[in-house]
Amino acid sequence: MYGKNFKIGILGGGQLGRMLLQPAIDLDLNLKILDPDKNAPCSLWATEFVVGSLTDYDTVMSFATDCQVLTVEIENVNTEALKDLQKQGVAVYPEAHILHLIQDKCAQKQFYQKHQIPTADFVLTQNKSELSTLTHRLPAVHKLGRGGYDGRGVQMLKTQAELEKGFDAPSVLEDLVDIDKELSVIVARRPSGEMRAFPVVELVFDPRYNLVDYLLSPANITAEIEKEAKDLAFRVVEAMNFVGLLAVELFLDKNGNVLVNEVAPRPHNSGHQTIEAAQTSQFEQHLRAILDLPLGSTELLAPSAMVNIIGAEGYTGEVYYEGMDKILAIEGAHPHLYGKSITKPSRKMGHITIVDKDTASLLEKIKLAKSCLKVISR
Amino acid sequence: MYGKNFKIGILGGGQLGRMLLQPAIDLDLNLKILDPDKNAPCSLWATEFVVGSLTDYDTVMSFATDCQVLTVEIENVNTEALKDLQKQGVAVYPEAHILHLIQDKCAQKQFYQKHQIPTADFVLTQNKSELSTLTHRLPAVHKLGRGGYDGRGVQMLKTQAELEKGFDAPSVLEDLVDIDKELSVIVARRPSGEMRAFPVVELVFDPRYNLVDYLLSPANITAEIEKEAKDLAFRVVEAMNFVGLLAVELFLDKNGNVLVNEVAPRPHNSGHQTIEAAQTSQFEQHLRAILDLPLGSTELLAPSAMVNIIGAEGYTGEVYYEGMDKILAIEGAHPHLYGKSITKPSRKMGHITIVDKDTASLLEKIKLAKSCLKVISR
Repeated sequence: MYGKNFKIGILGGGQLGRMLLQPAIDLDLNLKILDPDKNAPCSLWATEFVVGSLTDYDTVMSFATDCQVLTVEIENVNTEALKDLQKQGVAVYPEAHILHLIQDKCAQKQFYQKHQIPTADFVLTQNKSELSTLTHRLPAVHKLGRGGYDGRGVQMLKTQAELEKGFDAPSVLEDLVDIDKELSVIVARRPSGEMRAFPVVELVFDPRYNLVDYLLSPANITAEIEKEAKDLAFRVVEAMNFVGLLAVELFLDKNGNVLVNEVAPRPHNSGHQTIEAAQTSQFEQHLRAILDLPLGSTELLAPSAMVNIIGAEGYTGEVYYEGMDKILAIEGAHPHLYGKSITKPSRKMGHITIVDKDTASLLEKIKLAKSCLKVISR
Repeated sequence: MYGKNFKIGILGGGQLGRMLLQPAIDLDLNLKILDPDKNAPCSLWATEFVVGSLTDYDTVMSFATDCQVLTVEIENVNTEALKDLQKQGVAVYPEAHILHLIQDKCAQKQFYQKHQIPTADFVLTQNKSELSTLTHRLPAVHKLGRGGYDGRGVQMLKTQAELEKGFDAPSVLEDLVDIDKELSVIVARRPSGEMRAFPVVELVFDPRYNLVDYLLSPANITAEIEKEAKDLAFRVVEAMNFVGLLAVELFLDKNGNVLVNEVAPRPHNSGHQTIEAAQTSQFEQHLRAILDLPLGSTELLAPSAMVNIIGAEGYTGEVYYEGMDKILAIEGAHPHLYGKSITKPSRKMGHITIVDKDTASLLEKIKLAKSCLKVISR
């Protein structure tokens, strides 16, 4: 479709980059990937793989010299370089200023406030001493402004005694939401404005790791809540004038209010099931969006569930997937391993999507999948 | 699932190999690919790509020295090497003697006859002079015993005058079948015996190229014919004691008889739509079968159609896909480009799968897709 000299640069070579490679094969796109880890999940598969820092200005500039389009699979990248690359005519999606905004949870919350996008009430804290004056807002969640990821940088603060666990850096102190469900909507938007959302998914968290335990698609919500969640996600995307793929994580509270929790400007854990269960996968949709190609259908082919494959407690070392044959024997189960050679407790090593037309049977299969597989080292 | 030193060798690096890479990423398998063309569709994507002849004994032996499992994505390979590798303990699927049998249409037809598997009546011909004595069998189809591929090596002989076009080498002269439909069943079988078939698909040929024009899944046939076709395909697989993926091409004649036309011992053009429209793709199924892993569900998620993307007449040179944006705008359309940089008239450059719950709309979309896209050079 594009010439052989057309190159898309991707900052980050983790599992999301790896899953972007699969639709890139179908569209015959040339992806060049940058990651600091020479053994990153993309390292063996990318047509071009460069080892280097994502946060170093010069490394990113030099990496992108021969790219016409640049995107990310992780937020924590050097946005100054992205700004300068945009100026040089590289199509950078999502845009540098959006990434800069999203990298900072404090700025993100202020953005919602400014645009009257419903979100949990909050105050910003600069340091621990400021936090210590806010006992009257407890219980609350303290979220580190910059640098948090996958459960790190988020701390529940219930009592005055727990204030000690808060962050001594710019953070958000957010009121606890009386959560009925956690939802996610993934929206794609092209430079030309076309916008599409995947059906809302429902996320069930594992309290031990504060990671998604499993998700259900479609979410078990009313048509009204489905519409409200999608409309809200569209509002966020439009307020940001966003291009690319935006995962909008939402809370449905017990009074039926839908609130924005946070967003991720890339393919997201809550969209992995689209590979098998939707007409278009979130990864193909991301490529279509940043290339300003017509967006694919987001219609579901069947109900599905997704469980993360997580490194078991007590095992660090060369990974072994105990029980994988049992997973493969589950009708409609699709394991996706990320090619990480070393397992560690709670490390995301892969995921399993299960597709089943019957929702009750789907839930049984999730349980079964979770009980079959253990990620260990031997 | 397997250790990092576990390696699967694939003879052939064309589009079928390329589509095997995609599920290999999910299963974290290490594929090593051999192809004589350094620009073959797999060349940029395989984790290990070796340039060399598939028909040269020494090349194949040396390629496979570090492989535990070996398979093919093309029939025309050195089966002597495969035999010796089997003796050395490499798991070679499909097995060498099966490939040897399938490479030769004469032997294949005799096999069906011996096992009382219904197939069109035939006589074998050694050369043109023998053919010239068989005027009484015309009209008939002459099929070259060895070396035919994708419409080459098949010649319709209607009149005595046309006998001149026959092959001067061992061939099959086959009675014309009064064809109602051409069907295909793809069966996977593990070494341990588990066997599964995908639903029957219906192939519509383009008479200009003698290539599949489009196919429909599921086939528009009765439940009885569906069962008969699958049972017949299972009989072929069991008669061969076959391991791997066998595509069984069938004729449904106007009297309602189902006859075996020929087989292919690998993923097949008639199974490409399984990537999007079935629970498990034929490519993942092939990997599961040769690794003796539980086979995946073959259930369809939705009706689908598949059209080949063929190089237009009159264009040879660096490929340009005119109208690809229109293809991407068709709801449920999934283009798969094979990454061939040079187009030639009638060269298979890719395929498009269209998924749509409504069959009438599916047929409209096939027409639209065929009219939108032109594979040219500029």
